[in-house]
Amino acid sequence: MLKTPSFLSEEIARKQSLLCVGLDSDLTKIPAHLRHLPDPIWEFNRRIIDATAEYAVAYKPNLAFYEAMGSKGWDTLARTLEYIPKDIFSIADAKRGDIGNTSTMYAKALFEAMDFDAVTVAPYMGSDSVVPFLQFPGKWVFLLALTSNPGAEDFQGYTQDGVPLYQHVVKRALAWAEGQPGHLGFVTGATRAASIADIRALAPDSFFLVPGVGAQGGDLGAVCEAGCTTGGGLLINASRSILYAGGGEDFADLARAEAKALQAVMSEYLAR
Amino acid sequence: MLKTPSFLSEEIARKQSLLCVGLDSDLTKIPAHLRHLPDPIWEFNRRIIDATAEYAVAYKPNLAFYEAMGSKGWDTLARTLEYIPKDIFSIADAKRGDIGNTSTMYAKALFEAMDFDAVTVAPYMGSDSVVPFLQFPGKWVFLLALTSNPGAEDFQGYTQDGVPLYQHVVKRALAWAEGQPGHLGFVTGATRAASIADIRALAPDSFFLVPGVGAQGGDLGAVCEAGCTTGGGLLINASRSILYAGGGEDFADLARAEAKALQAVMSEYLAR
Repeated sequence: MLKTPSFLSEEIARKQSLLCVGLDSDLTKIPAHLRHLPDPIWEFNRRIIDATAEYAVAYKPNLAFYEAMGSKGWDTLARTLEYIPKDIFSIADAKRGDIGNTSTMYAKALFEAMDFDAVTVAPYMGSDSVVPFLQFPGKWVFLLALTSNPGAEDFQGYTQDGVPLYQHVVKRALAWAEGQPGHLGFVTGATRAASIADIRALAPDSFFLVPGVGAQGGDLGAVCEAGCTTGGGLLINASRSILYAGGGEDFADLARAEAKALQAVMSEYLAR
Repeated sequence: MLKTPSFLSEEIARKQSLLCVGLDSDLTKIPAHLRHLPDPIWEFNRRIIDATAEYAVAYKPNLAFYEAMGSKGWDTLARTLEYIPKDIFSIADAKRGDIGNTSTMYAKALFEAMDFDAVTVAPYMGSDSVVPFLQFPGKWVFLLALTSNPGAEDFQGYTQDGVPLYQHVVKRALAWAEGQPGHLGFVTGATRAASIADIRALAPDSFFLVPGVGAQGGDLGAVCEAGCTTGGGLLINASRSILYAGGGEDFADLARAEAKALQAVMSEYLAR
């Protein structure tokens, strides 16, 4: 099913949650009792999805972790995507972006060969690296604006005429998305909550995908304060803190508890 | 075999060629008589490799074209990589880049699960998105600096204190590569030959991967003038102009002729 921004807002309101669960599933970190099964990452992912679906409005497989397993990894990714409940948003965290005809092929890979609702895209190569992804009706793009990692400071704050690059990216990209602006969102790292407010001022109606809560140390409350809108406006991602909440046979129960705890905090901000 | 910069320079001198053949192989564009074989892109690629290996010092599969075929595409990519002669440089054109632990997984995917010599990387996320790729001994990174597409102008020329972003990227990245600087190269589009000279001034000893000759309209002579060094210093990519030089049963002969014609021009500049 194609998902509109209003559908996503309704799901956020119904579940009282902004939670996106990042499926950065790593064979060396999953519980030992799963590692000897034929497709251990799939076995892990389906248990994580079962445990967290009540609290999550999105799942975000990180493609690097599947590509590292070669072609078998793509099969695992396809099985995982198939298992995600159809009313929950799916994001291919791929950070793709290339010249026009190549971006179109990446879009076909993720929106047609697979059926993700959204993809993360890197902006460095400009308009014709991003627009092809926006031309798939009903599909979404989350464009990197200000990321959560230390290296974000190397280039994203590069400033011309007083405007840092990440703000310039947001402004330019919004112009490219005329026609289906609701389907262009931005990646804004949780570790830089003050800047989330700056980006919200530029893009009042866009969804933001916010990584960096949990293992990377971002403050969930500060992120909600800076970025929440009446329609929710945020998908806040947690990966390692949920996936590896426990390392034993009770890992799914502990993942559920962590997801529930994050949802509880989110619900406070959504109730305001 | 791991390839040093001096090995690559020796191959360039021996073949009198800077040619990189881009394997952007598209099922809708390959000759009709191959399309009904069990793995048509593999059948196409091995004939292109056979026809051009005499003139090429590198091959560059474009990962989007393989991902668009799902997990089967990764098998085709692996077979293609295996078929590339071991003395010819192989580049995964992937434009990857993510937070540190994720970039490490992408590097494992391309340098371990597969055995590419090099990968193209996008710089937007900064140091910890690039450095993990440089930590694989003997492997190479080609970092996007100034690309060949129209959208390059959107962000790559963003200027702080008189320095455009693409030059800032080159300067910063060279500092990250201390230890194995020869293994960090840059992507510099053929359509912007004047800027190739600017980047050469900043990075006198680096290899540049130069797309945009052929279908994108870059001038081969101008590129050589701007970027050639005594060790070659350039890998000049042509994809569509070679792959689709012909659409019939003689496609491989026509691809060979196109590769030979490009090599002939390159040899004139290398002889200077």
